[in-house]
Amino acid sequence: VSAAWWNGRLVAAEEVAIAPDDAGVLHGDGLFETLRVDGGRVRDLDAHLDRLFASLPRIDLEIPERRRALAATVRVVAKAAPRPAARLRITVTRGVAGVPTRLVTAVPYEPPSRAMLREGVAAVVLHDLRLEARGALTGLKSLSYGAHALAQLRARAAGAWEALLLDKEGLLMEGSRSNVVLVLERGRAYTPPAAEGCVPGTVRRRLLEAGLIEEGEVFDDDLPAASEVLLTNSLVGVLPVGRIGELRWSPGPVYRRLRKALRR
Amino acid sequence: VSAAWWNGRLVAAEEVAIAPDDAGVLHGDGLFETLRVDGGRVRDLDAHLDRLFASLPRIDLEIPERRRALAATVRVVAKAAPRPAARLRITVTRGVAGVPTRLVTAVPYEPPSRAMLREGVAAVVLHDLRLEARGALTGLKSLSYGAHALAQLRARAAGAWEALLLDKEGLLMEGSRSNVVLVLERGRAYTPPAAEGCVPGTVRRRLLEAGLIEEGEVFDDDLPAASEVLLTNSLVGVLPVGRIGELRWSPGPVYRRLRKALRR
Repeated sequence: VSAAWWNGRLVAAEEVAIAPDDAGVLHGDGLFETLRVDGGRVRDLDAHLDRLFASLPRIDLEIPERRRALAATVRVVAKAAPRPAARLRITVTRGVAGVPTRLVTAVPYEPPSRAMLREGVAAVVLHDLRLEARGALTGLKSLSYGAHALAQLRARAAGAWEALLLDKEGLLMEGSRSNVVLVLERGRAYTPPAAEGCVPGTVRRRLLEAGLIEEGEVFDDDLPAASEVLLTNSLVGVLPVGRIGELRWSPGPVYRRLRKALRR
Repeated sequence: VSAAWWNGRLVAAEEVAIAPDDAGVLHGDGLFETLRVDGGRVRDLDAHLDRLFASLPRIDLEIPERRRALAATVRVVAKAAPRPAARLRITVTRGVAGVPTRLVTAVPYEPPSRAMLREGVAAVVLHDLRLEARGALTGLKSLSYGAHALAQLRARAAGAWEALLLDKEGLLMEGSRSNVVLVLERGRAYTPPAAEGCVPGTVRRRLLEAGLIEEGEVFDDDLPAASEVLLTNSLVGVLPVGRIGELRWSPGPVYRRLRKALRR
């Protein structure tokens, strides 16, 4: 942690300390956003604030900051963030005694290596850790993200970059830290519908709005027929999957098209 | 917070500060237990440690303390806890950089008033906030407790002590902070089966082991036929429900029997 804004004040990052009776610590009661910063400039801030401010009422939470003030704050923290790249996080919790905790922090970020982009990353499909398609917090970037954290841990334990999560019917929902895109018949690129419970990522949103991908239900048994499998999130942009179990892919034309579109 | 043990050391409670990059804050990645302390003595410690140590492997988490050492620590914090009654909490998170955070704190606790015991408390049934019966963290006292926290908030907003949670099929699972017992035909007392996804509470366990309640599926439309509705948790023991919407109950013979049994 190298730069921070905390409950209305800019502080040295080392000063930030969360009380043990903060609702975020007690019950994972809050929301977060993760943003990419390059050379002090934050990416896609509007899309992240859209999602945050749309999510707050879903957990009956209000924060004192208006959107414009929070945006200005994020830009200030981004400017002071590590270079060349940083991971910026907005955290909002129900706090203590009716006063929500608001926190913006930034830490150094190491983008995917050239080898990862050239060969694709490994992913695993978790069959014994299912997500809920229509739970109280489904689709929110909630601090109650323990299932996703456990999935990411299991991905790493398997030497993979990402774990793909299914719902109880085998519907592919999302990765532990990314949205997923499958390229299927005639090169059409499908991402699981938001209505099925994935967290609607900001990169996913941009690609949908650009008409480069479309929503469509995909199952884990569609994977062998996929010509490409791609992952998106606000930090990596888009990343090709090179292998899942015995299946192998090379980065293909859809990957290159999406990457080019995101660079604009 | 008035007495604390934190990562191996006894400290002044005010010293405890959770790092903003603790996995508990980042992703609700951890577990907790809530215990009742009376006059410096902790209740049902074994049952709580049973549950905690059975839950840790479910989230692939290990802590350096052995059970016996943690038990001794809890007793020390309990001894220094506020009197006459305190709420003691054990919190374990995945921590920072591979070192789990372990925390034992105690705060003053106000037991239910005589009026609550005499008239019963109000509860609401939440139809628009469903729990997942078979999710990755179902049945764990996980720090990813945001859905339960939101349910408790909605109970309070409705002037109720507890919110009863259903799964998607209308099966009654548990309260936001208690297990539920329905007294149905011929005075038999049913609590939802652990296999259906409730957090298996320590009081619920004692009552099951004593043969005073039994596991059985109950639905929210069983409520009008119930002669008593009871709530159990480690802080209150057992509490009668006096009303849910238009339905009314008075504390009955099963409530008195369970209360008597728990006093022993």
